Amino acid sequence: MEQQTRIEADYILETASDPRHAAETMAGEQSSGTFVPVPGETPELKQRAAARVEAIRVLDEEVWEPSLPFAGVPKGGAATWRRAAVTLSWPLDNVGPSLPNLLATVAGNLFELKQLSGLRLLDLRLPDAFAEKYPGPNFGVPGTRQLTGVQDGPVIGTIIKPSVGLRPEETAALVRDLCEAGIDFIKDDELQSDGPACPFEDRVRAVMGVINAHADRTGKKVMYAFNLTGDLDQMRRRHDFLLAHNATCLMASLNSVGLVGMIELARFSQLPIHAHRNGWGYLSRHPLLGWSYVAWQKIWRLAGVDHMHVNGLQSKFAEADESVTASARACATPMFDYKPCTVMPVFSSGQSARHAPATYMALGSTDLIVTAGGGIIAHPDGTAAGVTALRQAWEAVVAGLSLTDYARDRPALAKALESIS
Amino acid sequence: MEQQTRIEADYILETASDPRHAAETMAGEQSSGTFVPVPGETPELKQRAAARVEAIRVLDEEVWEPSLPFAGVPKGGAATWRRAAVTLSWPLDNVGPSLPNLLATVAGNLFELKQLSGLRLLDLRLPDAFAEKYPGPNFGVPGTRQLTGVQDGPVIGTIIKPSVGLRPEETAALVRDLCEAGIDFIKDDELQSDGPACPFEDRVRAVMGVINAHADRTGKKVMYAFNLTGDLDQMRRRHDFLLAHNATCLMASLNSVGLVGMIELARFSQLPIHAHRNGWGYLSRHPLLGWSYVAWQKIWRLAGVDHMHVNGLQSKFAEADESVTASARACATPMFDYKPCTVMPVFSSGQSARHAPATYMALGSTDLIVTAGGGIIAHPDGTAAGVTALRQAWEAVVAGLSLTDYARDRPALAKALESIS
Repeated sequence: MEQQTRIEADYILETASDPRHAAETMAGEQSSGTFVPVPGETPELKQRAAARVEAIRVLDEEVWEPSLPFAGVPKGGAATWRRAAVTLSWPLDNVGPSLPNLLATVAGNLFELKQLSGLRLLDLRLPDAFAEKYPGPNFGVPGTRQLTGVQDGPVIGTIIKPSVGLRPEETAALVRDLCEAGIDFIKDDELQSDGPACPFEDRVRAVMGVINAHADRTGKKVMYAFNLTGDLDQMRRRHDFLLAHNATCLMASLNSVGLVGMIELARFSQLPIHAHRNGWGYLSRHPLLGWSYVAWQKIWRLAGVDHMHVNGLQSKFAEADESVTASARACATPMFDYKPCTVMPVFSSGQSARHAPATYMALGSTDLIVTAGGGIIAHPDGTAAGVTALRQAWEAVVAGLSLTDYARDRPALAKALESIS
Repeated sequence: MEQQTRIEADYILETASDPRHAAETMAGEQSSGTFVPVPGETPELKQRAAARVEAIRVLDEEVWEPSLPFAGVPKGGAATWRRAAVTLSWPLDNVGPSLPNLLATVAGNLFELKQLSGLRLLDLRLPDAFAEKYPGPNFGVPGTRQLTGVQDGPVIGTIIKPSVGLRPEETAALVRDLCEAGIDFIKDDELQSDGPACPFEDRVRAVMGVINAHADRTGKKVMYAFNLTGDLDQMRRRHDFLLAHNATCLMASLNSVGLVGMIELARFSQLPIHAHRNGWGYLSRHPLLGWSYVAWQKIWRLAGVDHMHVNGLQSKFAEADESVTASARACATPMFDYKPCTVMPVFSSGQSARHAPATYMALGSTDLIVTAGGGIIAHPDGTAAGVTALRQAWEAVVAGLSLTDYARDRPALAKALESIS
């Protein structure tokens, strides 16, 4: 197979102009062209630096309103808008294998082009040079299974709630209950990092005291993803503090830290990186604007995160289930032949035992983390029964049994299914 | 005046539910609440940690289609959508004065709420603790004027074109022409950083050779913003290389580097930071989603950038002129009484002598950088005449004269106005 030496990006665009012309404008804007001819743009320069329209497929549907306002209509042009699936490519040598510069190339000014009334980046394919340059996940699925001791089935987790406002000792008390309930994984809420009301180091000290004591007593080390999001020096210090307290996971908010910060964090981190996607809505909520998760998650996987949030099926959020499924599958799909960079998808938001069958069907694997809040603690017999019920639900689906059948002689699951009708 | 101790954010939201209820859901989701009641959410905890709805104003207009799809309609609820201007506030102690954690609080999960069919962050007001924690611009307007030697009027600039594909020596040849044409400022295109086709260090060596020689000969040191966007270690190395070659400016792409990387860059940079906003379209292009520039630019100003791109009036991009004006004015509006953090707005994209009157009217000041490409090099008498014409256009507007009058005995301006009809 020929070594891929061009960067490829797939988009959906919408325009009142000729879609091919719009695609060529994008290619020009994002490489050697500009809106007026310039003297230096010689055929030889174009040959080495120009982006190419590799494929274009005009979609049948015509649209009577532009998806985004302020889009231009060409003089004498159609008053209808058409959509097209477009693939552009760039020579690797324009940017080299640099993730930050890749962003300016595939996701830069082009979203502002007047000619487009819609543009969304759907997918990316990168030359192997990116895999050589960036580490990918250091822990991923095997590392997470090893550190949690969960060899089969999903990693069953929860989130500290209330999201923000608990003091360190209150957090630790909740963690004690969760450890005793048999949980595998706990995470800070993304709102909780190092506010004066619950300082990071105090929280780590209190929580790891509980977790380490529980591990000493039972042999089970619960994984806690501490949210160390902050400035770089803070993240370094917090990381070292986590190591010193035998923590086994850290969490960071991707849109708060940004790409260069995450690359740097992954370089020095000796712990799995649980990546939170809060803010994802502003990047993706309009279907004709921004990023698809399939493209977006590739950036962070190469950068080196280990767990990626994908929302959950039938969640409290607006996202459609097919989109959640596509996101989770993308996380489990290898990026490069020799370096798959697969990460563990994290299902969250309103998740419970009832979601296990559809989630398993969607992903086709149990290599996932599920974090349930209400779905665990709202169990009529308490948190331990909530954890047990969620685990039993997954046992059932992996065995190919219905939840109702499996619940017959398993009261924890039976009561969970009754209570979350 | 009472010291502000709460973080405040203004939004516009759209919902099929009661707008007040939607605002309260946002406040809950982004602080101590969640979608089910949780045991720990005591009145005392709410008192110290809950976000508050400070103000809500339902806008008159009803909307018959949701702005964003997949939004929920309440059972028995209206089939129309209403919009409201909402102000939320949070106790500073939830996050402390941390820009990365501020993002998760004011711009986190809330864009994904099913209850909202539109949500845009319009503005932010931060307690003084943020000004104490973060540096703000190190150079800003006075530092840029001092380094360019441009004491009056706008800093007249241009962008290297073709955007990408020129070799270092070709770039330097273009810079030589621009220096001789009397330009004040030149920038790399955001597509050009350190690709193998035009390595950063080779480009700096070639370009600074020209600029330093020109400065030695004429006393005028042209400011060149070298795009050092890259991983953190690369940015450090490139920064030091710029210093060693007596460069006077660096450029970085905000959405490529991200917040933590930019904070770190501003900490070690001894040069003005020219911040490029490419990718801004995916954050802002839909009017009921994402970020307004007024809110967004505050984050980067505090982080320490010196120049912020604001697009240009009547540009090649989709943005409306009023939005460009609001962005530029925002950059010049003090953020804190004792620490204004004002930055130099950069007008670009299809700019020419003709844009000077409207731009001056919009900003009410010449504390700006204007970068014109075609607007300079397309001048019939060449680049020097192009630079002169642009400078003369600004002299005219500052003197309160019409371009046509001022052009009467100024052939450079006259020909510019003829050629860009």
